[in-house]
Amino acid sequence: MKKGEFELIDHIKGHFAEVPEGVVGIGDDCATIGTEGEDWLFSTDLVVEGVHFLRTKSTPEDVGWKSAAVNLSDIAAMGGEPVATFLSIALPREARGEWAERFVEGYASISHHYGVPLLGGDTTSSLRDVAVNVGVLGKAPKGEALLRSGARVGDTIFVTGPLGDSGAGLRLLLGDHPTDDTTAYLTAKHNRPTPRIAEGMALRKTGKVGAMMDISDGIASDLRHILRASGVGAEVELQSLPLSPQLRTICEREGWSATELATSAGEDYELLLTAPEEIASLVDFPLYPIGRIVEGKAEIEWHDGGEKIDFTTKGFTHF
Amino acid sequence: MKKGEFELIDHIKGHFAEVPEGVVGIGDDCATIGTEGEDWLFSTDLVVEGVHFLRTKSTPEDVGWKSAAVNLSDIAAMGGEPVATFLSIALPREARGEWAERFVEGYASISHHYGVPLLGGDTTSSLRDVAVNVGVLGKAPKGEALLRSGARVGDTIFVTGPLGDSGAGLRLLLGDHPTDDTTAYLTAKHNRPTPRIAEGMALRKTGKVGAMMDISDGIASDLRHILRASGVGAEVELQSLPLSPQLRTICEREGWSATELATSAGEDYELLLTAPEEIASLVDFPLYPIGRIVEGKAEIEWHDGGEKIDFTTKGFTHF
Repeated sequence: MKKGEFELIDHIKGHFAEVPEGVVGIGDDCATIGTEGEDWLFSTDLVVEGVHFLRTKSTPEDVGWKSAAVNLSDIAAMGGEPVATFLSIALPREARGEWAERFVEGYASISHHYGVPLLGGDTTSSLRDVAVNVGVLGKAPKGEALLRSGARVGDTIFVTGPLGDSGAGLRLLLGDHPTDDTTAYLTAKHNRPTPRIAEGMALRKTGKVGAMMDISDGIASDLRHILRASGVGAEVELQSLPLSPQLRTICEREGWSATELATSAGEDYELLLTAPEEIASLVDFPLYPIGRIVEGKAEIEWHDGGEKIDFTTKGFTHF
Repeated sequence: MKKGEFELIDHIKGHFAEVPEGVVGIGDDCATIGTEGEDWLFSTDLVVEGVHFLRTKSTPEDVGWKSAAVNLSDIAAMGGEPVATFLSIALPREARGEWAERFVEGYASISHHYGVPLLGGDTTSSLRDVAVNVGVLGKAPKGEALLRSGARVGDTIFVTGPLGDSGAGLRLLLGDHPTDDTTAYLTAKHNRPTPRIAEGMALRKTGKVGAMMDISDGIASDLRHILRASGVGAEVELQSLPLSPQLRTICEREGWSATELATSAGEDYELLLTAPEEIASLVDFPLYPIGRIVEGKAEIEWHDGGEKIDFTTKGFTHF
């Protein structure tokens, strides 16, 4: 479950205090339902036109791709293997023909890419805005799904790839910028995020990961979820945040803060995890260390070149 | 998966031809995913303000109740036991406070009534209309979930309760009618449908059911799904359709056709099933025989007092 702009979740939780044994309820990337052989993971996300995407700014194929990608990313966040997706879509009259078919092309292309079948759903009308809900079912060996609550003092904090690209891509989409290699790269990172499924499974298999989640709101907000769930603090070194050359280029050109984008813009869908330092040598993809887990309150102490700084950020709010 | 006002489903199916073994994909009430011990059932439905409900005509509690009810009904339709639900809700600014909290009360009340926990979801913003997606996970013993494809020639066609009440209730809600016992009963049948979970499980346990589904679009439309999936025809006797006294009263008073409401208005969420006649003596709730399965094209031959009539109906279209 992702953080929304407002919090109905606490109210909902109050009504559903009792959760069956063997189940992780509301609050992690997926719900986990234990069966005899394995744990089933389930996640669902609702995206609405005008809030999460603009039909004038993203192609229908991109919206289809991303709708599935962000859910597959929730399975990746727990080190799970996706099994199937379920697609519900509400379409206003003018989106029913070509728009809808091209949406399905994009949805199908990522589904085929990761070999995940679509097993059901619902198609219906809406008056004005497209609404898309994707549910995704995954699985993991019993008791091995990676939670947000497992961070241990002394763990290194890692991310699996560059941060801030998606946020820069969104700014470019909303502005009126000429297309070049830099802007094309960044907008593609926003429109076609890559769920880190193989990476998530490989990290789980090392047996070394403390806590893991995917980066949807930006590390400034997402890391706090891990800290709260684990009862620990963190130090993060801003100089260590992995930034793409394209992000550096656009920030220089437009006068944007790469640090702000990398910490707070969100939607990068890289994995954020805590583990002993040596995990980096156990996997065959890069892990970028950005800080460490420390004792204390569930807050982030930001450092810049080793020096503690007063850096306040807030999580990404949709446009 | 429910029939929408338009058919994107065939296009979607074309993109997802390959479905893993042991899985019933798009086209039944739920997707079925076989595991070692049991079959897991999953269904999802998206409801949108202005299409499926009006905030001016239904209380938030009613919308919450019904959002869960129609999904639980999909589990009942396969004779399954509901395990958990997942709620995604998009809210415009003016629905975020009291409306949303009262919606959750209604959703929680049906969840507690049937002992089904909410295990996850998503809360987000929308610009203008409330959108609600509910996903429901259920289970059934391996290979025993009841499909639409099992109807056999000679089977009797049954329904589990009166038809047409919900459609009359909707007409009353949309009109400007004084409240009395009759209208209160009918609007409650529309706003607070009862998923026939215990009945569905009991019917499954008899081992006698051919095909089963729930009535969402009206039998004129829904029965055809069974006929097509099973490759059989049907004869239905209009005089046998179970009608509540309240429906008879309102139809007399307003000059409405009870037959039209009972066959085509939909949203009754009773179960529609085919089975040998003797099944009625194996369960402790009433089953109403309305016709029988015959050889031939996947069409309904309508009878009125034993006489074949030319009766054309169309499925319920949302207002």
